[in-house]
Amino acid sequence: MGAPVTIALDAMGGDQGPSVAIPGAALSLVRHPDTAFIHFGDEQLIAPLLAEHPALAANSRIVHTDVAVAMDAKPSQALRSGRGRSSMWMALEAVKSGAADAVVSAGNTGALMAMAKFCLQTLPNIDRPAIAAIWPTIDSECIVLDVGANVGADAGQLVNCAGMGAALARALFHVDKPSVGLLNIGVEEIKGLDEVKRANEALKKPDLPISYHGFVEGDDLGKGTVDVVVCEGFSGNIALKTAEGTAKQIAAYLRAAMSRSLMAQIGAFFAQGAFRALKEKMDPRHANGGIFLGLQGIVIKSHGGADAIGFASAVDLGYDMAKSGLVHSISKDIERFQGALQLAPALKNTDAIT
Amino acid sequence: MGAPVTIALDAMGGDQGPSVAIPGAALSLVRHPDTAFIHFGDEQLIAPLLAEHPALAANSRIVHTDVAVAMDAKPSQALRSGRGRSSMWMALEAVKSGAADAVVSAGNTGALMAMAKFCLQTLPNIDRPAIAAIWPTIDSECIVLDVGANVGADAGQLVNCAGMGAALARALFHVDKPSVGLLNIGVEEIKGLDEVKRANEALKKPDLPISYHGFVEGDDLGKGTVDVVVCEGFSGNIALKTAEGTAKQIAAYLRAAMSRSLMAQIGAFFAQGAFRALKEKMDPRHANGGIFLGLQGIVIKSHGGADAIGFASAVDLGYDMAKSGLVHSISKDIERFQGALQLAPALKNTDAIT
Repeated sequence: MGAPVTIALDAMGGDQGPSVAIPGAALSLVRHPDTAFIHFGDEQLIAPLLAEHPALAANSRIVHTDVAVAMDAKPSQALRSGRGRSSMWMALEAVKSGAADAVVSAGNTGALMAMAKFCLQTLPNIDRPAIAAIWPTIDSECIVLDVGANVGADAGQLVNCAGMGAALARALFHVDKPSVGLLNIGVEEIKGLDEVKRANEALKKPDLPISYHGFVEGDDLGKGTVDVVVCEGFSGNIALKTAEGTAKQIAAYLRAAMSRSLMAQIGAFFAQGAFRALKEKMDPRHANGGIFLGLQGIVIKSHGGADAIGFASAVDLGYDMAKSGLVHSISKDIERFQGALQLAPALKNTDAIT
Repeated sequence: MGAPVTIALDAMGGDQGPSVAIPGAALSLVRHPDTAFIHFGDEQLIAPLLAEHPALAANSRIVHTDVAVAMDAKPSQALRSGRGRSSMWMALEAVKSGAADAVVSAGNTGALMAMAKFCLQTLPNIDRPAIAAIWPTIDSECIVLDVGANVGADAGQLVNCAGMGAALARALFHVDKPSVGLLNIGVEEIKGLDEVKRANEALKKPDLPISYHGFVEGDDLGKGTVDVVVCEGFSGNIALKTAEGTAKQIAAYLRAAMSRSLMAQIGAFFAQGAFRALKEKMDPRHANGGIFLGLQGIVIKSHGGADAIGFASAVDLGYDMAKSGLVHSISKDIERFQGALQLAPALKNTDAIT
């Protein structure tokens, strides 16, 4: 089992704040009893909620903060007003100081990223972090990044995403040479953005510690064609939300189909176990949690509208990341990756598309 | 019923050429008996296939061409070798001359777009066409554009897409003021690409003949939040293929769930009618066909890998577009839209993101 994991919880983040974060932590603790929690936020709100979860309370302490970062605050504004005193910042500080192994927050994404960069700093040779999502596939899972940390990416940043995603795949999926694809609008080499084409050329280098697949398209995400799909944050975020929307849409079709006739209702009755399993598999709450990659510390972002079950998935992810020793392995992997790549200056200094 | 519709069929396009296009046309003819076809391509291949479909043969003529545009040809190369003599070009020419009302092709998208621009020309005040998709939503359908004609778009091009998409919605959905949303990675005004933000400002102008909704996200596509979703072609294409992939993935989950136990199999037996209806609803072949908007003529692009059922949907779409008098109404709508907009020069002359 190894050493216990300490999670720094930004209890004030998300649409519901502590009333979701605390029961979410309690759910995750059942699955991982070797977790300790430090809850950052308004003690007046947190303490009564903890009292309802004695097992969690026994593994928790509260650090009171007066300031919570607003969900609609601009990153610069959040940094100005929240640095050194908001629940979000203090949770990040706990990871920086070594008091905690991972931060979990359902707060404002832009503010969390800005504070995380400022407080934890990026890894050597990484100029900006990316957000990675664990994407369910037909048979398994893949990693998709960036799903929204940045809008636009130059070739060098896409290549770095490939390195970070591969390191994460190595840690999570235990594959030595993860397969990596670049998201594009066609598998032909003549199509797509210039940045994507140049990243494609760079990733073809034969001695990289990845198995480079080439271009992939939107339908390869769910197929699980590769372990890691690299894209810039605008299209990655749109792909993520489109997939979530499509899953909900099909669930609505299925519900309508199963209630349209008596025969269908009888069928649905017999198949209710199967439908429950399917619902469980398609439940987006089980895939909640974006991983901030490229920082000197583990930061997990829960969906702001997540409920306790969803928030618990994000806490689980923080626990798994901490257990896998992710930061250390990514840092070493990136070094190896960039060494093998010997990035040409031309690739490093290209302009971002925004 | 009105005047019959003549479809110019590029019989050589797509992975399978005439062996898909001809049976596809035959299927569509059953649904729309007032269709006439001109088949452009290799007569040696087309004639025996037509002989198998007597009803289609009675409403068809063949124009023999020696040249077919390769599926992997670059647009410039296709134009050089195929102009004036390929099946694709000759089909477009038939629309230009008035001999046909719409072109349907499963050929190379880039080549078809380049030839269509060259042969048919764009509408006044439209500098480049877009590809629109009819997107199934929970309760109905919406229009999404651009899904891959161009990579990147400046604010003026996004605004023009809004105008063209609204005109299409008016023609297809019979709404006077279609609701229009701009695809972005958050509904907050601080997020996203600069081009998208500037298009957002322009579309807020109160007297436009649309109901402007503001930003929408990927999950709004399937929800049917708006009648028209505007995006640039790279992210639009990725959204489209991600949705297709997610639908296939969930269908695989459903099949697996329904075969996992005897109870589930019994349930599936009773519900087989419902499953058939669901399968029919989710069948991507029914949504096959991209509409090239902004040209002086109707051009429908079928998926290159479509089978006869899919190709028939693309022919249906060409038929519907021709019946609705689309080109004329879009041209008038765009004029009205741009008049109301009085595009500021600053908006027109922004740089594309690529």
